[in-house]
Amino acid sequence: MATSAVAPPSFETRPAGAPQDERQRVPHRAATDDFHWEGVEQRPYKEDERALYKTITRQVLFSDPAMAGELRYFEVAPGGFSTLERHEHMHAVLILRGRGHCLIGEEVKRLETRDLVTVPPMTWHQFRASTAEPLGFLCMVNAERDKPRLPSPDDLARLHEDPKVAAFLRGDAPAVAK
Amino acid sequence: MATSAVAPPSFETRPAGAPQDERQRVPHRAATDDFHWEGVEQRPYKEDERALYKTITRQVLFSDPAMAGELRYFEVAPGGFSTLERHEHMHAVLILRGRGHCLIGEEVKRLETRDLVTVPPMTWHQFRASTAEPLGFLCMVNAERDKPRLPSPDDLARLHEDPKVAAFLRGDAPAVAK
Repeated sequence: MATSAVAPPSFETRPAGAPQDERQRVPHRAATDDFHWEGVEQRPYKEDERALYKTITRQVLFSDPAMAGELRYFEVAPGGFSTLERHEHMHAVLILRGRGHCLIGEEVKRLETRDLVTVPPMTWHQFRASTAEPLGFLCMVNAERDKPRLPSPDDLARLHEDPKVAAFLRGDAPAVAK
Repeated sequence: MATSAVAPPSFETRPAGAPQDERQRVPHRAATDDFHWEGVEQRPYKEDERALYKTITRQVLFSDPAMAGELRYFEVAPGGFSTLERHEHMHAVLILRGRGHCLIGEEVKRLETRDLVTVPPMTWHQFRASTAEPLGFLCMVNAERDKPRLPSPDDLARLHEDPKVAAFLRGDAPAVAK
């Protein structure tokens, strides 16, 4: 399983001390080809070099001092994956592009375009793209949120006890019911 | 301009006194054909019979006591439109399906699939589908938000002073730059 050489901290993305949003309130941003948007910067996925992930990008679509939530777009390249992590804040996810699988707690789910995923508080989760195409998803979070936590060696050992979860973590496309 | 015979109030949707969410936290909801989701109820657009709108449905995709934002999916049938309204809370919109136009303040914008729309506080806004296909969009709002306000006759008169806005409100497909 290849890993990113340069790695940043998780689903948590706002650098400490950074303003919530330096951008103006632009009423309309046209979508450009290939899932980008006018004036929206493609950022590195994470700023925590401890996090393990592979070929994933991040675009912050909505972040505003007057909004209690933020909406981000993550895109995982074919065969790539997000960081395995958990935290107190929740994720509300809609698959915008492609297909893949995700781990939510001890459940492995097959994902198709437009499927919804709810990640409850303190629940281990990871997203994996299929090898055929990118997996792009919207993720709504609270603007005020805690930092993600990475699994300890003990956590990883526990997760690997379930063969389905272990196969998912290895990157073996699981034969799970949708 | 046809109007709905039975009409409810605006983008505000939660009936007063209703619990935030009676549903369980379902980790995965598969998308079904034609922009519906497993276990997500298609609700009437509004509960305010004063609001003027046409052929629009609503599905609440994410609403949870632990989340400060909500994500809803609205779908406007071909030739239909949402209520013209404004309120203190903001809308963060992503077009998920189809095309159309929107009014944001005094600006009329052409909308294509995946475009982003930001509706700032106290800004008049309305969405109109093209006549060819449904216009479906995601809308993120604060879970705690004020009720939308409808335009007074004076507000409407002021909005109609701009020929571009008047044409939009009449439902004439405007020839505006994207």
